[in-house]
Amino acid sequence: MTDILRVAVIGAGRMGADHIKRLSTRIHGAEVAAVVDVDLARAQAAIAGIDGAVALASADDALNNGDVNAVLIATPGFLHEEILYKALEKDFPILCEKPLTPDAESAWKVVQAETATGHKRIQVGFMRRFDAEYAALGSVIRDRELGELLMLHHQHRNPDTPQGFTNEMLINDSVVHEFDAIRFFTGEEITSVQVRLGKATRNAPNGQHDPQHVLIETESGVLADVEIYVNAKFGYEVATQASFEDGIVSIGGDGGPYVRSAGRWGGKVTPGFEERFGAAYDVEVQAWVDAARRGEIGGPTAWDGYATAACCEAGVEAQKSGEKVAVQLNTKPELYK
Amino acid sequence: MTDILRVAVIGAGRMGADHIKRLSTRIHGAEVAAVVDVDLARAQAAIAGIDGAVALASADDALNNGDVNAVLIATPGFLHEEILYKALEKDFPILCEKPLTPDAESAWKVVQAETATGHKRIQVGFMRRFDAEYAALGSVIRDRELGELLMLHHQHRNPDTPQGFTNEMLINDSVVHEFDAIRFFTGEEITSVQVRLGKATRNAPNGQHDPQHVLIETESGVLADVEIYVNAKFGYEVATQASFEDGIVSIGGDGGPYVRSAGRWGGKVTPGFEERFGAAYDVEVQAWVDAARRGEIGGPTAWDGYATAACCEAGVEAQKSGEKVAVQLNTKPELYK
Amino acid sequence: MTDILRVAVIGAGRMGADHIKRLSTRIHGAEVAAVVDVDLARAQAAIAGIDGAVALASADDALNNGDVNAVLIATPGFLHEEILYKALEKDFPILCEKPLTPDAESAWKVVQAETATGHKRIQVGFMRRFDAEYAALGSVIRDRELGELLMLHHQHRNPDTPQGFTNEMLINDSVVHEFDAIRFFTGEEITSVQVRLGKATRNAPNGQHDPQHVLIETESGVLADVEIYVNAKFGYEVATQASFEDGIVSIGGDGGPYVRSAGRWGGKVTPGFEERFGAAYDVEVQAWVDAARRGEIGGPTAWDGYATAACCEAGVEAQKSGEKVAVQLNTKPELYK
Amino acid sequence: MTDILRVAVIGAGRMGADHIKRLSTRIHGAEVAAVVDVDLARAQAAIAGIDGAVALASADDALNNGDVNAVLIATPGFLHEEILYKALEKDFPILCEKPLTPDAESAWKVVQAETATGHKRIQVGFMRRFDAEYAALGSVIRDRELGELLMLHHQHRNPDTPQGFTNEMLINDSVVHEFDAIRFFTGEEITSVQVRLGKATRNAPNGQHDPQHVLIETESGVLADVEIYVNAKFGYEVATQASFEDGIVSIGGDGGPYVRSAGRWGGKVTPGFEERFGAAYDVEVQAWVDAARRGEIGGPTAWDGYATAACCEAGVEAQKSGEKVAVQLNTKPELYK
Repeated sequence: MTDILRVAVIGAGRMGADHIKRLSTRIHGAEVAAVVDVDLARAQAAIAGIDGAVALASADDALNNGDVNAVLIATPGFLHEEILYKALEKDFPILCEKPLTPDAESAWKVVQAETATGHKRIQVGFMRRFDAEYAALGSVIRDRELGELLMLHHQHRNPDTPQGFTNEMLINDSVVHEFDAIRFFTGEEITSVQVRLGKATRNAPNGQHDPQHVLIETESGVLADVEIYVNAKFGYEVATQASFEDGIVSIGGDGGPYVRSAGRWGGKVTPGFEERFGAAYDVEVQAWVDAARRGEIGGPTAWDGYATAACCEAGVEAQKSGEKVAVQLNTKPELYK
Repeated sequence: MTDILRVAVIGAGRMGADHIKRLSTRIHGAEVAAVVDVDLARAQAAIAGIDGAVALASADDALNNGDVNAVLIATPGFLHEEILYKALEKDFPILCEKPLTPDAESAWKVVQAETATGHKRIQVGFMRRFDAEYAALGSVIRDRELGELLMLHHQHRNPDTPQGFTNEMLINDSVVHEFDAIRFFTGEEITSVQVRLGKATRNAPNGQHDPQHVLIETESGVLADVEIYVNAKFGYEVATQASFEDGIVSIGGDGGPYVRSAGRWGGKVTPGFEERFGAAYDVEVQAWVDAARRGEIGGPTAWDGYATAACCEAGVEAQKSGEKVAVQLNTKPELYK
Repeated sequence: MTDILRVAVIGAGRMGADHIKRLSTRIHGAEVAAVVDVDLARAQAAIAGIDGAVALASADDALNNGDVNAVLIATPGFLHEEILYKALEKDFPILCEKPLTPDAESAWKVVQAETATGHKRIQVGFMRRFDAEYAALGSVIRDRELGELLMLHHQHRNPDTPQGFTNEMLINDSVVHEFDAIRFFTGEEITSVQVRLGKATRNAPNGQHDPQHVLIETESGVLADVEIYVNAKFGYEVATQASFEDGIVSIGGDGGPYVRSAGRWGGKVTPGFEERFGAAYDVEVQAWVDAARRGEIGGPTAWDGYATAACCEAGVEAQKSGEKVAVQLNTKPELYK
Repeated sequence: MTDILRVAVIGAGRMGADHIKRLSTRIHGAEVAAVVDVDLARAQAAIAGIDGAVALASADDALNNGDVNAVLIATPGFLHEEILYKALEKDFPILCEKPLTPDAESAWKVVQAETATGHKRIQVGFMRRFDAEYAALGSVIRDRELGELLMLHHQHRNPDTPQGFTNEMLINDSVVHEFDAIRFFTGEEITSVQVRLGKATRNAPNGQHDPQHVLIETESGVLADVEIYVNAKFGYEVATQASFEDGIVSIGGDGGPYVRSAGRWGGKVTPGFEERFGAAYDVEVQAWVDAARRGEIGGPTAWDGYATAACCEAGVEAQKSGEKVAVQLNTKPELYK
């Protein structure tokens, strides 16, 4: 086991701030050494109360700071590529929030760059794999407890979207999680994507068609579908129902205290992804820290980042054409097999 | 199979009106021949649209009406005794709403009167025995599917009480259902009752202590308890949790459409006993009609009416003393064994 | 209100026998007058214990029997058309099990024949409309309680199929229920059908591809999909999840006693359609009887039978082609508007 | 914020080993400095793979080891008192597993010893207070969201008991958690305890009467009851149903993946306390570490340990007499108000 991880967190926005809090109060074996944000005041606010952390305005300064030995990238996706190359050069363990990069071509370059180093350094932030229920469903599938998996039905519902959330982002930022989940559950690549646009909610912003129904196939013929509905108002819900030869498994049901009052029974819907997946983020980051201290990675690889980027490109094309679009992938390097 | 039952319904209040509707629109093999109410206008309103039914002001007139061959008694309990004797004299099949009579002494006289006739004519309206979930739990117990039954926890909650609902009525009109249910589930007599009065709701009317916690024992030592809470406001709930040697069974859970909206998941609580036990009433009355046409009864007996009356007397005494009170019963006549 | 319905039940197979028991023990206002089956012994067995019923080998004899004034058709679908014409000629109230007839062309002829009589006499046996949860979801949709309906996800799972159950029957006998349900929920016609075939279960018989994923659109653009899975082994399940502008509603969840034993919590899955929809059949037949006695029908019309037949034809074509197939309908006669 | 906590864990049994793993892999801001066990080999096994930790055979050696600045006591309860005095002398932050000490008299001495130091150093291991659902129910009560709390129904069920588990341990080791929970929920002291012994399971070891029904009252008259059932076989369950003036709240329901297979719906029961309360233990220990680094305690006090010891003594007496037994407490020192 190497020394404690001294992490440079690049990006102090919503996700970055979350990770900073996580690393500095709940994660064992890691500390925040530096926080980088182009808005230096935001970086400074983020390190308040954290002994031994510095606020910086450039990623270069952080990577070259002698106190730093690991990187967590939480900037907008279009900034990832450049930082990834620099961190690979330093041979630092890297946790990169999804997407790896915004398109399949650049993601493939990152895969090649990492492959050239001869070992895996990049873990991509598909945190759902670390959710207890995802993990449980994953092992039912892998162990063939209920025979072969045949179909996967996904519901991905958010209460609303930030301003400027486009149809493309609905695939690239939201359905991307299901692309990874389907790959994780089946252990197969996705071969095609189709998108159905039907009746739209009055609650969607101008120019956004919401909800949409995404139809997905894998190598062995597993049929998956996703209701992606990002202005669903009632709350946050991420659920999956899997049909097997010998049974049905559902995850993502509601929980918490059960109340009967004023003529109704039930409880509170999870309000957002932090509440739904907060524990999964903790497990993800702890897995990364533990693996990094052993010189390994502890989760999804750069190849996973690349393959989902290719799915997203097919998804956006399918959204426009209404037709089924094939997903094309380069040959998988030995490093990821 | 004898002819169709031509039923005289005695009492056209809430329960009577319910039974009139049931007999005239959903029950096979029976029809309403007469409706009796001291308020003749109420009887007349109750027969509107029912071909061949007459409205009468006296039970005697109904029993002596040549068209009547069966009686359903739905008057207040203190009027039951006299009508029961007259109907036994006519040898009519009788469905008598609970309580059989208001006290153990008079109930015992009815038991003796029926015993003297040599056959069972009286069915008492403990309709919970006909509820699908009660029946299912009953057979788990009888078949020892999960070993011996050890404890029964009951929740009996009503949204509110009619004016003038006293502490005694809380035992006699409400907990009486659990006394019968416990006897039905265990097939044993109840041997003692204790009542705990604790903190009371602000929503109870003056002079009524609500909720109360009733502790019950049976012959073999099964421990039961009842939360009786009759101003619970949120809705109607009747539920039981049974602890066995090899597992736990709960009945009376919530159901219906499952809604996620406005930050909450769940559904609608049953508003009252009609919605919760409507189907059980139909099954009960159909069972009575079918048995009556064969010359039998199809449910709880006069003995059941008597034994629960004895439990209620002990319950009211326990409510006043705070002590455990033994339940005393006469010897069971052969007719009911 | 006319006299009691004296019903000729045509066909004494599984469904017929069920209806005979229903009419003779639970339905108010109707009796079984005649049972017809080409296998006369089966008809005779079916009337055992039913006073005043005759067993016959031909539908003609039943329709011309002076004691009969209503018809319930429960033969295989290909025999419906001829009996329907004869019963229409007699002007009898008709409850015809689904399908109305096996194809859209013959169904359209029946619609025209009924239209020519100037009044509605035929009720078609889509019993799901009478299920309490279907009714509840239907009124949430119609009353726009949660805004506009946007998507419908259906699961239709059976434990297994009778021998000889083909891909075509999977649409015509199974998905036909969802075609009617979607029309009932939305109050709109279905405009297109697409079918996805993916990985198949080892438990399907030779020549049958199971499960399948059926994609449906309605006039206003509501997107529906159906997982039809008829060898699902675990039990029987019919469920729907509806996505609205302001919330999500699910029906068809599991219920009954809740058991914790041997390391598991839960309950028993409904084993078949009789248990799942038994109450709905009772409500359906009572609604038909009550309406028939007033000279009306009390449920889905011959037009509903015709329109679903057209959906089935499109579905079977879509199953073969893999493409989206449009549903073509004749103009709706005034009688059904 | 002071330096990282260097914790001496006293006792390397089941609970101790659990805490050692927790401190060395998941808790931020603390490390295991020493593990003490009379069985030195067990202590040595427990520190395998933990850099900088020593195994010792005596608590004295650990407390005097210069590298130690905090103590977590996980020995059997009868050994707590002596270690507590020594740790108080060192002025170390202390997390003491429950019970504080085995009886009210010795617990009161510990309270006095801590009071004499003038500040709180001892946190007692009632981890249920850190469970998310307990916390949620606690705030519903405190905020009077549903009016006044009236009753609390507790189910405390274990699959089985270790050899030698006596009737007294059933109160002292099991119901002690409900004593603390009731005090936590109501913010009141418990005033009386009564115990009902009924029918016993065949699965209990000789000399142990299982299950038992414990009846509890608080200062304001809240009525609580506990089904304590420690050989319940089906699995582990800790649940509470709270009745309020304006509604009912239940916690401790089942969760996890929802499976339909082989004729059943449902999921897996939690097998034991580690799975049910693992997250609560993490939160508890993190709260202790965070507070200790600020010179405070982060949970239940020595007074809580003393008051529950007094409840346990009353409970054991009530178990023997069958009567209601009053709970007697000394005056609460200012330090704990």
